[in-house]
Amino acid sequence: MANMENFLQSADYVGVSFWIVSVAMVASTVFFLYEGTHVKSSWRISLLVVGLVTLIAGIHYYYMRDYWISTGESPIVYRYIDWFLTVPLQMIEFYLILVAAGIAVSSSVFWRLLIGTLIMLLGGYAGEIGWLSPGFGFVIGMAGWVIIIFEIFRGESSLKAKTNPNIKKAFNSLRLIVLVGWAIYPVGYIFGFITPMLGGEVVNINTLNLIYNLADFINKILFGLIIWNLAYQDSKI
Amino acid sequence: MANMENFLQSADYVGVSFWIVSVAMVASTVFFLYEGTHVKSSWRISLLVVGLVTLIAGIHYYYMRDYWISTGESPIVYRYIDWFLTVPLQMIEFYLILVAAGIAVSSSVFWRLLIGTLIMLLGGYAGEIGWLSPGFGFVIGMAGWVIIIFEIFRGESSLKAKTNPNIKKAFNSLRLIVLVGWAIYPVGYIFGFITPMLGGEVVNINTLNLIYNLADFINKILFGLIIWNLAYQDSKI
Amino acid sequence: MANMENFLQSADYVGVSFWIVSVAMVASTVFFLYEGTHVKSSWRISLLVVGLVTLIAGIHYYYMRDYWISTGESPIVYRYIDWFLTVPLQMIEFYLILVAAGIAVSSSVFWRLLIGTLIMLLGGYAGEIGWLSPGFGFVIGMAGWVIIIFEIFRGESSLKAKTNPNIKKAFNSLRLIVLVGWAIYPVGYIFGFITPMLGGEVVNINTLNLIYNLADFINKILFGLIIWNLAYQDSKI
Amino acid sequence: MANMENFLQSADYVGVSFWIVSVAMVASTVFFLYEGTHVKSSWRISLLVVGLVTLIAGIHYYYMRDYWISTGESPIVYRYIDWFLTVPLQMIEFYLILVAAGIAVSSSVFWRLLIGTLIMLLGGYAGEIGWLSPGFGFVIGMAGWVIIIFEIFRGESSLKAKTNPNIKKAFNSLRLIVLVGWAIYPVGYIFGFITPMLGGEVVNINTLNLIYNLADFINKILFGLIIWNLAYQDSKI
Amino acid sequence: MANMENFLQSADYVGVSFWIVSVAMVASTVFFLYEGTHVKSSWRISLLVVGLVTLIAGIHYYYMRDYWISTGESPIVYRYIDWFLTVPLQMIEFYLILVAAGIAVSSSVFWRLLIGTLIMLLGGYAGEIGWLSPGFGFVIGMAGWVIIIFEIFRGESSLKAKTNPNIKKAFNSLRLIVLVGWAIYPVGYIFGFITPMLGGEVVNINTLNLIYNLADFINKILFGLIIWNLAYQDSKI
Repeated sequence: MANMENFLQSADYVGVSFWIVSVAMVASTVFFLYEGTHVKSSWRISLLVVGLVTLIAGIHYYYMRDYWISTGESPIVYRYIDWFLTVPLQMIEFYLILVAAGIAVSSSVFWRLLIGTLIMLLGGYAGEIGWLSPGFGFVIGMAGWVIIIFEIFRGESSLKAKTNPNIKKAFNSLRLIVLVGWAIYPVGYIFGFITPMLGGEVVNINTLNLIYNLADFINKILFGLIIWNLAYQDSKI
Repeated sequence: MANMENFLQSADYVGVSFWIVSVAMVASTVFFLYEGTHVKSSWRISLLVVGLVTLIAGIHYYYMRDYWISTGESPIVYRYIDWFLTVPLQMIEFYLILVAAGIAVSSSVFWRLLIGTLIMLLGGYAGEIGWLSPGFGFVIGMAGWVIIIFEIFRGESSLKAKTNPNIKKAFNSLRLIVLVGWAIYPVGYIFGFITPMLGGEVVNINTLNLIYNLADFINKILFGLIIWNLAYQDSKI
Repeated sequence: MANMENFLQSADYVGVSFWIVSVAMVASTVFFLYEGTHVKSSWRISLLVVGLVTLIAGIHYYYMRDYWISTGESPIVYRYIDWFLTVPLQMIEFYLILVAAGIAVSSSVFWRLLIGTLIMLLGGYAGEIGWLSPGFGFVIGMAGWVIIIFEIFRGESSLKAKTNPNIKKAFNSLRLIVLVGWAIYPVGYIFGFITPMLGGEVVNINTLNLIYNLADFINKILFGLIIWNLAYQDSKI
Repeated sequence: MANMENFLQSADYVGVSFWIVSVAMVASTVFFLYEGTHVKSSWRISLLVVGLVTLIAGIHYYYMRDYWISTGESPIVYRYIDWFLTVPLQMIEFYLILVAAGIAVSSSVFWRLLIGTLIMLLGGYAGEIGWLSPGFGFVIGMAGWVIIIFEIFRGESSLKAKTNPNIKKAFNSLRLIVLVGWAIYPVGYIFGFITPMLGGEVVNINTLNLIYNLADFINKILFGLIIWNLAYQDSKI
Repeated sequence: MANMENFLQSADYVGVSFWIVSVAMVASTVFFLYEGTHVKSSWRISLLVVGLVTLIAGIHYYYMRDYWISTGESPIVYRYIDWFLTVPLQMIEFYLILVAAGIAVSSSVFWRLLIGTLIMLLGGYAGEIGWLSPGFGFVIGMAGWVIIIFEIFRGESSLKAKTNPNIKKAFNSLRLIVLVGWAIYPVGYIFGFITPMLGGEVVNINTLNLIYNLADFINKILFGLIIWNLAYQDSKI
């Protein structure tokens, strides 16, 4: 009796948030992959990629949850691996949904989004593991983010999306998630990593992880549901 | 020989009920997801969501079962996580089945059901972890439940459901489950949590868990079967 | 080297039978669920339910096998849970195959079969855990079995099945399994449980489990194959 | 660091062969079940059964591999269980492919193949566990094999296969596997079991397992690929 | 608290690369198998085989990752097993995509590719485990590689691929991967195995594994994506 330490504790509300997100990712993956086989075929790839995002996140959240429950530490390394795989897939979605909606869009949109994303991630990672100074890595990472933000707010993909009333609203919601929701990650980076280096307070790891988990819930699952809704509506017509 | 402690004991009838529900959830998930691909396409989402409810519950029941068998304690925290994910999905079903049956229903029904559910869950949770006093949290939670009950018994969804003979009977059965079956949760909350705080007797955890398990069996699996039957009949015609 | 105790021993022929049945259930589940998507749509539910029976049995046989290998005791409690879930599903099959074959059959057949089954199982269980005396529980359980046997040999389902040459032969085979194959369970109950209480010899647990395993193999897998064959033949025409 | 003992060792080439076969069985199972849904419907059952053979073998090879790595002993009992389930399924294939190719063949072919197989397996097993003397069990087992060999080389199935140019070549390849590839099992039986009883040398278990693993690779995966190729070619036309 | 040793360490960048590849293989497998059911049927086998490659690699990367994290050693034996299964499947792809594109190509292409691959792998393996001297094994292995390179750059498959504008570009990309990407393996063999034997420096295992992981990412996933893109474009037309 009573080897309760291996289980989630009631009072561990951060652990609860890890748990909720881990299971929600599993359910979302089933949802997106299942729906992908039923929507209009032009939308299949979009839903498949969204399903892979939640699949990959689900795998990492299972490890992160266990890591948190058994060590009580922030599972930083798993988060980075997760982002390294899922963020590029999500950026590609902006390109994929334009194509799915039948909008002629040059493949350079695809490459600008992918390259912006890789700059963003590698800059942050290089700063964190010391290949670059933290501040410089951060600046590079932000530069990548700016490329993405420009592309989806003022670039070709933005202009093309405006021409199609079906897609316009969803496109705007998605880019709002990227603008606001994704801003959480660099903010976390500043508070969790740069500030302590500069002698500031270490951010509370409970708060940090709670915010990250909420951000992933919105940035991955809600992001996916918006795309699914777009695909679903378009398949009905 | 004889490391029998890790296994379910014959005399542990509460453990037996955990076990039955855990396996029944797995089988139900296969059933609903399998059927979802075969019914008329307008019913696909309804069955998929029902399948996700039993999938999520199945995952949690596996953990709850192990928690019970190895600690002999109530797996409260897992139940809350489960409800937090499955209850909103089930409330959305009232909206989904109206849409699937081709009834014009405003999206505000969807939002009233979702918001009522979140108020119900967050009120209860806030009371339990001490953000609010237990009594006040309970009152808030009940207010959320009243919103739901009003919506499905007197609100737009109720009025619309009456207009369609195919859906009327199933709709009435489902809302009966919500009225009677779901009442078990606040009753459990009062006996298991508020009463002891007020100096009353702690409710017997065997009884409490047995009732919760039975409630989940009915509220999730029977709930799903009613929706499946509706979809199945409608797909045959 | 040589932590051989966790593995199945060559000389443990009862363990071998647990193993064979556990793997056969997995393979059967794949078979029935796979075939269910390909037969004529009226037969889909019949095969799905048969697949759920072997899925549920497969899960329990994995636990039973491990229980047997690591404790050397009869996994009674897992058997009861398995029966509690699979036996009602199998009884419902008699109703489902009549419906699938296009025979008009009243829903009271469904309810008589389900209620007979629940009486049979709950009677036996109540006797075993002491809510009723073992003998009285046994009598109640047998009464449930008689209801089933009457229904499928002389009741409405029996009469309706006779009218359809396609289904008649399979129906007769299935009811033979219920009459002969299922008789093994009450016989096991008498020898394993009632007799020792009355001061008789405890039945050899090796023999008992070997017989139960063989019975489950026939009563679940062969039962399912007969239904599959019926569905398969009917889908070809 | 360095709990390397639980892992496969580079120098353990027999363990390597277990590993290769175990993973190859998994991949083959995915291949056959996936293809089964796409070939002409008359071939579906043939590919499904081939997929079940590799599924069952895959499960056993995972256990055999672990058994070998952790004990260094021959996993005899798992091999027998595997054969008991997979060999009858493979023999049935000779009947299934004739039916799939649209050749009228009496069901007695099915029964002769199944009964020959069961005699072969039960004879060997009875000799091994001592119900019969090893030599007598071996003779019975060989008698079963002869029934099979006669059926597929001179019996009805052989005669019917000759009439169909599409199937003739594949049929001949399959029966060659049964003649040559399956001969490995009785040979292993003689060297590994009977010879030591008669005072001869115990066969080297490394050699024996390496040969068995190679035999299973050919007899199950190549066997399946021949059937798949037949189904694939026939579905294209 | 703090049994952190079983988890991936942030500073272990080689472990990070194992992790990324392992999860990427899982996601790729889902992607390829999912897409295989939706492209034009002539491309189904090509995508299925690509999906099996990433499935097999995914299984091995999970073991390699755990091996690396718990022992800190190079998981050489798992890499060889992986290559032994995946490399022949990838070589067969050159044949399969020509067939899928409707190009008449003799089956000797298939055999030349398969035999070249087996010579390459068995030569290397024989050199490594000492059946041949390391240098001689290496020479044999390289001879196999030359057969492949000749076939895809100057052989029948190369000539046939040129005749089809759709396939020409993809074919050229794939053979570039085989020429450049696969060269990493013999280079690793020289530095990791032959050089130390000749008295040279042992190559740094961090560097070696990082390069191997990157190579597998490109040689398997990018390789597969090129084939998928070809199939996808061809299915749209």
